[in-house]
Amino acid sequence: MPQVTSGKKRQLVIVGGGFAGINAARSLAKSPDLEITLIDRQNHHLFQPLLYQVAMAGLSPADIAAPIRAMLSSQKNCRVIQGEVTGVDLVQKLVQSDAGPLPFDYLLIACGARHSYFGREEWEEFAPGLKTLEQATEIRRRVLTAFETAERSTDPEEQRRLLTFVVVGGGPTGVELAGAIGEMSRFTLAKDFRRIEPRSARIVLIEAGPRILPMFSETLAARAMRDLEQLGAQVWTNAKVTSVDAHGVQVGAERLNSETVLWAAGVVAAPLSRALGLPLDRAGRIVVEPDLSVAGHPNIFAGGDIASFSHQTGTPLPGVAPVAMQAGRQIARNILNDVEGKPRESFRYVDKGQMATIGRSRAIVAVGRFEKAGFLAWVMWLVIHIYYLTGFKNRILVVISWAWSYLTFNRGARLIVRRDWRMFRKPSAAAAPSGESVPPSTGAA
Amino acid sequence: MPQVTSGKKRQLVIVGGGFAGINAARSLAKSPDLEITLIDRQNHHLFQPLLYQVAMAGLSPADIAAPIRAMLSSQKNCRVIQGEVTGVDLVQKLVQSDAGPLPFDYLLIACGARHSYFGREEWEEFAPGLKTLEQATEIRRRVLTAFETAERSTDPEEQRRLLTFVVVGGGPTGVELAGAIGEMSRFTLAKDFRRIEPRSARIVLIEAGPRILPMFSETLAARAMRDLEQLGAQVWTNAKVTSVDAHGVQVGAERLNSETVLWAAGVVAAPLSRALGLPLDRAGRIVVEPDLSVAGHPNIFAGGDIASFSHQTGTPLPGVAPVAMQAGRQIARNILNDVEGKPRESFRYVDKGQMATIGRSRAIVAVGRFEKAGFLAWVMWLVIHIYYLTGFKNRILVVISWAWSYLTFNRGARLIVRRDWRMFRKPSAAAAPSGESVPPSTGAA
Repeated sequence: MPQVTSGKKRQLVIVGGGFAGINAARSLAKSPDLEITLIDRQNHHLFQPLLYQVAMAGLSPADIAAPIRAMLSSQKNCRVIQGEVTGVDLVQKLVQSDAGPLPFDYLLIACGARHSYFGREEWEEFAPGLKTLEQATEIRRRVLTAFETAERSTDPEEQRRLLTFVVVGGGPTGVELAGAIGEMSRFTLAKDFRRIEPRSARIVLIEAGPRILPMFSETLAARAMRDLEQLGAQVWTNAKVTSVDAHGVQVGAERLNSETVLWAAGVVAAPLSRALGLPLDRAGRIVVEPDLSVAGHPNIFAGGDIASFSHQTGTPLPGVAPVAMQAGRQIARNILNDVEGKPRESFRYVDKGQMATIGRSRAIVAVGRFEKAGFLAWVMWLVIHIYYLTGFKNRILVVISWAWSYLTFNRGARLIVRRDWRMFRKPSAAAAPSGESVPPSTGAA
Repeated sequence: MPQVTSGKKRQLVIVGGGFAGINAARSLAKSPDLEITLIDRQNHHLFQPLLYQVAMAGLSPADIAAPIRAMLSSQKNCRVIQGEVTGVDLVQKLVQSDAGPLPFDYLLIACGARHSYFGREEWEEFAPGLKTLEQATEIRRRVLTAFETAERSTDPEEQRRLLTFVVVGGGPTGVELAGAIGEMSRFTLAKDFRRIEPRSARIVLIEAGPRILPMFSETLAARAMRDLEQLGAQVWTNAKVTSVDAHGVQVGAERLNSETVLWAAGVVAAPLSRALGLPLDRAGRIVVEPDLSVAGHPNIFAGGDIASFSHQTGTPLPGVAPVAMQAGRQIARNILNDVEGKPRESFRYVDKGQMATIGRSRAIVAVGRFEKAGFLAWVMWLVIHIYYLTGFKNRILVVISWAWSYLTFNRGARLIVRRDWRMFRKPSAAAAPSGESVPPSTGAA
């Protein structure tokens, strides 16, 4: 398995097939002097910005994911491995993985971030985060099952608890989730139930800070808040969740009963960052130099959500797709510069602005001093997301079809899929893994 | 919860939202004298004839499934419950369910069939069947993971085992699965790997009887067999599987090493059929009278794969979608006849022929004495399936988009999705449920 670094070919190992890793690999497609190995624990690249749409049954997992292997299929200098990286030997220049050791001349660490429960990881089973397709499907299962169970219930107290949805975290993801639940209950599901009134669903967005969407101006954040309220979502600011259990959350002295709690609060770098003895910032991200390499390790780069780059603005760049894409491309250029004997360049992030969507016809956009809210902002959001999604899906017709279903309020993926695929089970085997909270109707399957 | 049968309204309870149940409910949309309750353990109706396409990564689960609730949303006399039926009290006329008791004047039992392992249910974990979306996703995970694991392997013996796929059962489903694996390995995946040659994948279709596709003529079955062989699949007839384990199957004295075994052999009626004390045939199906009611229980009907109707041809009608759809509509008509004081009619199945597909441009069609194989047969197959799928998906654009990806060899849903959505787990909780065989790279997640 270990490959010998051949004559002039240099080995580049990329850990992670997200925006940074894929963009770096693609930028090096025409570099015959490099042999690239991209390793990822998942077999697919994920278009994260639309992941909330999978959680909210608007899109199918395959609509926003593509096999990494297929994306890099025609790139002859690149091979793809589905595997888990367990460590890096910085001295021997070896990536250790469950697919064997991978020797490298250059290393790009780009395995992203996950949600942080601030040391309370036991909350995860009661409040899933939204970083992977598996989590998105789990959230979809929980939200749809809550409506189904409420329809079967005859206990008004239980129905109320089932029709209360709590989203923790007032960043873009939390806002998107809260808005989408509001929309689903008010439009998509409105006529489908007989006993319950989906429109009466209560959505509470809990934010520990003084306001939601702190990366936007006060004006835009206020607009987003009004939009959320029109969709039936209440926003609690300065509200800190002090505990989470299977039936709700505690917010200081206040108890909020809910069967469905979603977690969109803190983010922490993937665990690999801590295992390497490299310089980290407070969020566990790898601190990088102006050229995106790690201090003292010029052959090791970090990009995307796992990297902390603060040379441009004094504070680390945000963990968003454009930063990861641009960083991936810059890292590729700097490796090429090395190969060609040219000096490296400093990374300079070109901020094209930021946007968040609250629901159909409701979005906010900020590009420098230009600010826009409402329908036009939403169209801009839609066009940009379709444009980038087409870029890697390469299937314009598919993109049109989901854009259509998105435009028409149709949620095409309202599936409750069970966790267990087996039909024949002993009663003991039917039980969920220990400690797991199973929504009633799913568990009874 | 229990509802009192009001004045003139008659209660119809439909157990199962498959082709029979949905067609019965829809045919009664304009009957103000009926109150219909449809209960299903899943929240979705499934277009079973294309389920193998989900297993083979050609389609997404949501492409061939629709929420039962949404399908019947505008039908005011019908409510939908997601729940599990635990029994039927024939005397009290109550369906017992985990959503409470459901009183009925008329009952339609239409909860289908599942695979039979001929008393060896322990084989299921090594050889999943294909009846539900969960099973289709599990098969997709296993097949794609086998290729990924083979690419990482350096042991030729292990690679061979990983690239050997066994399908048990030579009916239409087995033929479709074997053909689709052949196509995937020869076309879709051909250029995506560096170490393995997906084209070299070996596919073995095992049939206990003397030939595959016994419902077709010798000529058509022979043609299907040649088509399969062109796609790299070998057909073993008169071959009986005597044991299945995690690493292969035993076929009499012969051992076939394979990490991926799929089960498309026998079918048995859903367990509810046995719980009611009604007359059953040898496959456990409920024997129905000419009017599709159960002997001695004129108010109880059975339709679809759980019913055994042999008045027309002497042998039970096959468990296919057209039989279920027509039976569902006939049952609706007979209930209406009762309500209107007219005599019931006998069911007469109109056989529009049968078809099976082996792969792109490869299908067989038989309508009475008319027989066709090859490209034209495949176009007929495609048109008919698109037509019926459009019927319930109601989204022509979506259907076009998947037809497009189907025509272009693009398998848009090549996702390996893990079973566990959680990021933070104790090592003990990370273990798979007891007795479960987890493909290596998935288990290592």
